[in-house]
Amino acid sequence: MCNKIDVAIVGVSGYTGLELIKILVNHPHFNITYVSNSEGGVSVKELHPMLDGVIDMQVQKADANEISKVASLVFLALPHKTSMGFAKQLIAKDLKVVDLSADYRLELELYEKHYCPHEDKENLPLSVYGMPEFYKEDIKKASLVANPGCYPTASLLALMPFVKYLDENQSVFIDAKSGISGAGKKLSDATSFVTVSENMFAYNPLKHRHTPEIVEKVQLLEDKNLKINFVPQLIPVTRGMLVSIYLSVNENINAIEILKEYYKDEEFVRIVSNPVTIKNTSGTNFCDIFVAQDGNDLFINSSIDNLLRGASSQAVVNANLMCGLDQSAGISKIAYAP
Amino acid sequence: MCNKIDVAIVGVSGYTGLELIKILVNHPHFNITYVSNSEGGVSVKELHPMLDGVIDMQVQKADANEISKVASLVFLALPHKTSMGFAKQLIAKDLKVVDLSADYRLELELYEKHYCPHEDKENLPLSVYGMPEFYKEDIKKASLVANPGCYPTASLLALMPFVKYLDENQSVFIDAKSGISGAGKKLSDATSFVTVSENMFAYNPLKHRHTPEIVEKVQLLEDKNLKINFVPQLIPVTRGMLVSIYLSVNENINAIEILKEYYKDEEFVRIVSNPVTIKNTSGTNFCDIFVAQDGNDLFINSSIDNLLRGASSQAVVNANLMCGLDQSAGISKIAYAP
Amino acid sequence: MCNKIDVAIVGVSGYTGLELIKILVNHPHFNITYVSNSEGGVSVKELHPMLDGVIDMQVQKADANEISKVASLVFLALPHKTSMGFAKQLIAKDLKVVDLSADYRLELELYEKHYCPHEDKENLPLSVYGMPEFYKEDIKKASLVANPGCYPTASLLALMPFVKYLDENQSVFIDAKSGISGAGKKLSDATSFVTVSENMFAYNPLKHRHTPEIVEKVQLLEDKNLKINFVPQLIPVTRGMLVSIYLSVNENINAIEILKEYYKDEEFVRIVSNPVTIKNTSGTNFCDIFVAQDGNDLFINSSIDNLLRGASSQAVVNANLMCGLDQSAGISKIAYAP
Amino acid sequence: MCNKIDVAIVGVSGYTGLELIKILVNHPHFNITYVSNSEGGVSVKELHPMLDGVIDMQVQKADANEISKVASLVFLALPHKTSMGFAKQLIAKDLKVVDLSADYRLELELYEKHYCPHEDKENLPLSVYGMPEFYKEDIKKASLVANPGCYPTASLLALMPFVKYLDENQSVFIDAKSGISGAGKKLSDATSFVTVSENMFAYNPLKHRHTPEIVEKVQLLEDKNLKINFVPQLIPVTRGMLVSIYLSVNENINAIEILKEYYKDEEFVRIVSNPVTIKNTSGTNFCDIFVAQDGNDLFINSSIDNLLRGASSQAVVNANLMCGLDQSAGISKIAYAP
Repeated sequence: MCNKIDVAIVGVSGYTGLELIKILVNHPHFNITYVSNSEGGVSVKELHPMLDGVIDMQVQKADANEISKVASLVFLALPHKTSMGFAKQLIAKDLKVVDLSADYRLELELYEKHYCPHEDKENLPLSVYGMPEFYKEDIKKASLVANPGCYPTASLLALMPFVKYLDENQSVFIDAKSGISGAGKKLSDATSFVTVSENMFAYNPLKHRHTPEIVEKVQLLEDKNLKINFVPQLIPVTRGMLVSIYLSVNENINAIEILKEYYKDEEFVRIVSNPVTIKNTSGTNFCDIFVAQDGNDLFINSSIDNLLRGASSQAVVNANLMCGLDQSAGISKIAYAP
Repeated sequence: MCNKIDVAIVGVSGYTGLELIKILVNHPHFNITYVSNSEGGVSVKELHPMLDGVIDMQVQKADANEISKVASLVFLALPHKTSMGFAKQLIAKDLKVVDLSADYRLELELYEKHYCPHEDKENLPLSVYGMPEFYKEDIKKASLVANPGCYPTASLLALMPFVKYLDENQSVFIDAKSGISGAGKKLSDATSFVTVSENMFAYNPLKHRHTPEIVEKVQLLEDKNLKINFVPQLIPVTRGMLVSIYLSVNENINAIEILKEYYKDEEFVRIVSNPVTIKNTSGTNFCDIFVAQDGNDLFINSSIDNLLRGASSQAVVNANLMCGLDQSAGISKIAYAP
Repeated sequence: MCNKIDVAIVGVSGYTGLELIKILVNHPHFNITYVSNSEGGVSVKELHPMLDGVIDMQVQKADANEISKVASLVFLALPHKTSMGFAKQLIAKDLKVVDLSADYRLELELYEKHYCPHEDKENLPLSVYGMPEFYKEDIKKASLVANPGCYPTASLLALMPFVKYLDENQSVFIDAKSGISGAGKKLSDATSFVTVSENMFAYNPLKHRHTPEIVEKVQLLEDKNLKINFVPQLIPVTRGMLVSIYLSVNENINAIEILKEYYKDEEFVRIVSNPVTIKNTSGTNFCDIFVAQDGNDLFINSSIDNLLRGASSQAVVNANLMCGLDQSAGISKIAYAP
Repeated sequence: MCNKIDVAIVGVSGYTGLELIKILVNHPHFNITYVSNSEGGVSVKELHPMLDGVIDMQVQKADANEISKVASLVFLALPHKTSMGFAKQLIAKDLKVVDLSADYRLELELYEKHYCPHEDKENLPLSVYGMPEFYKEDIKKASLVANPGCYPTASLLALMPFVKYLDENQSVFIDAKSGISGAGKKLSDATSFVTVSENMFAYNPLKHRHTPEIVEKVQLLEDKNLKINFVPQLIPVTRGMLVSIYLSVNENINAIEILKEYYKDEEFVRIVSNPVTIKNTSGTNFCDIFVAQDGNDLFINSSIDNLLRGASSQAVVNANLMCGLDQSAGISKIAYAP
């Protein structure tokens, strides 16, 4: 077998960093040579006791110089803003970067409107949006991939097949439900067990910052401006995401056939004949999509694992493509269920 | 204190029957004299062990004759079809009836289309739809009240204030989430813990039979036909219901003010300034409603306890009104939370 | 009806403070005149939105002087140490106090060993341990009641009937499981949804500080020293507590009969014929107890609502007794289930 | 690479059958050639929709003759009694069998006392109890392995290191908590979401039939009879098992050192320094063990995935050993957490 490619993971304290380790430690072609967080001075198994017996490595305090000596591709699982500071240095050293933050997902103006001043304007235009179903060929040639957010991943995969049947500026309603791990590890009342168990609630309705990411990508891919009304919600589920899209198309279509045709060559999208469930995709890189239709009104329903298809496994698919590997190398298709 | 009114509960095996007992056993003006299920021969505490020390009564095999001797008002917590068979007999004996089934909720044609042939065509036209916010005066005079379904309750309370700003035949999208108790006690794969925990999924999307109930009531109340696209979903929650309604109004409105004005005299509807939560209404008869607006697009968000406001406590409010009592007598406003 | 007794609640931000409000707002003989937390400047419904429409009161910054003007009995729902500082002042003003903290539960030496130096040595000897089944007559005469911890409540109620059949210094094993609300509102990794859901784990095994509370009370009540091995655990449940006690008795007994006889006059203890469940007591002041026996080895199994019987409703029972009221006034026997 | 070994799975409808497919479909040395249930006539993905895109195979109506043509090793994931009927036929055809039922776990007399008359007395004495830590060399030579129950697996792994420090006939207390999947797929009130959520309860306390399995194996391995008091409980968790063992040893020992020494060469047992958690082993074949000690009293605490270490992955470890493969081939050490 050919030599493995050395990779680094920057930001292994959080959930997506943990998932990256879990995927990469058994990857047939990648070899983890470096893991880091903001402090270092700890082992992986001290940070994540469930990895005792799986990986025996020290966590470093992140340092771009050190990384460049031991890896040729880097996964950044960092908060936005911190991430671009790092990416810039790594790209300068000719490393390939898959950035799981929001920093390279949007065009400049939109980014600065919704986040903060951009600190790597040089590389931003070179980044490729890492949704393989839409940008596979670009990803293969990219050295900087912006890994999509979980909400945009589940939403765009469900929405795109129908955009051509929508009027310009049409209202689209997205009712999105996320497992609690999507909120990250930071402690808050909203993610404590007592708040979440036997409960459900929306947050930031109609003003979540994943909305512009969806709008922009639709615009870029189909040259059509939509009015996306996006409502994110937390459900008493650890991992997984369910998205319901409601819209009215402008002509008489056969929605299920359009969906099947659109994804007929995609191994990580399954068109299903019953409403999607969270558990059927949890643990996998699949996006399941279902559609129901009443005249011109559609209910489009998608499910992904927010930490995998919505973050870490999609990141590894992107890395696979960037390195000329089969996109499915090391990627799980086996759900955790039951 | 004046004499209490004797009441019977027919169908105490299920969740709504249990909730009726829990409310009525401490009610200041009602006195439970008779409880029954389809078999009898058991005590309440054998059927519901948590009521040991609370109520010491035998469960009878339901018999309309016996009931008429000991009660003047009857709650029917029965499956549809069985219910109308019973109601007919009780009404013939001049008893007041609150029917929690679907049997008297719809006009004849619609009922027979979605359920089965109606067996009490005589009384059907006399029944009043038991949503106190919309039919209070009629309920006070009624001797047969059709208690609304849980989905229509949460949906209509959220939707009605905005119907006048909708075009005829406009598409309205209702994304509804129900706790598992809403499916009743009957065992099924879909309600087993292993299926439900860490999961969420829609069922009967765009074809649930609560849809015509919503459409009909809008038509009757506001003389407007809407195209309701209704998607019910199960969430890993025991009790509670969250409804998201998405629609576009036909003029520039101030949605939150309309909502506040509409319910300014209603003690069981709370207009809240943050997205609603299930836990804030669980255990109560409240319906919480929130609205967010982006131009003419609205997100209307309501929460109820599916077993209380969606069934048993609304039934007791109706009984209160039918008996000339204060509507809030014996009705809980105290949520179970945390 | 006679005049109501004015009561204050100090510490309404936490779960037990919230539960006190929920009980007292509908209490037939108590009238809440004052609620406070450490900051004040907020209304009850801002602090606890689910109480909107239930109670309309400002939360004060706690002040003993102010309290003495408006209340004759005070519930302290404060952390230990803070609580005794307050209690001392209130007692000096001749107010009755029910203290929900640990500050007056233990004798001096034991308290200082497990907590901190005691700052109210004067009143400590006057306090009565607020477990009505064991100290009812003392509670009636007390002006300072130390409300028991949740673990000791469920453990002692299950254990005491069998202490006389145990040898001195015998090993008793208590495997206790608590809902997450027992850990209070303070944010921690251990109580976040992602940690708790689909999980279960012990903490402080064999060294939890509720152990000495159990040992001391057994000693005081039955003059017998036991070796209590106590293991607390967190379960993915919001409220409720299940205790399993394992021990070997020193003679041939009929365990179930002993249990029934022991509690035959107690309305808040139910001896049940199947293993106890959390849901049958959640929402109530009941303690359910079950026992199974194999020769001299016993499995004693009890269930309480940790926030009610383990804190706030037991506190109100104590207050009822201190004020000469029926112990069950305002106390719920109706479980939340389903 | 050498040729793969063809294997069959009989009984793929249930949870353990599903888990076997999930493990074997990616196994480096086994090749699934045949899957069956009691009816046949369905595809794997119709039975388990989450396997769409993973395995494309028809489920057969189980037939020993057919199996013998296409496989050399068979996993039986059947109910007891059905299983031995099948095993007998397969062994007669010289196939290797790993039986996940109880049929070959106990010696004849004990089996017939707790289950039913044994129908394969010929092969019963040849079966090896499939707990690799205790019977590895025997398993390597076996053609019939009785895969242990989940409760005995977690209990014996925790208990065995300390048996030599126990007196004959000593009382040992095992408080065991199982995720709901352990009850299998059969619908029952006890496993419905409404019953289980926010709840916990014991069943068959002191008389579960996994008790004799534990007693017998201790007797066979250490020639010591113990009085095992076993209490199984259901917790609101889908998969996973937590066991607490309470006992008093007869001499002064260093419990943690004994544990470490006992399992120093075992890759699937982790001795951990904090109480075990369910989530750290869910998704893996690990058994985590923790011990706390107060004098001679021990709290021994173990965690396994009930469907993997407690059934399917342990079965594949056994199959690996029976076929001369590395025991860890195809076995996951990566927990699902978070």
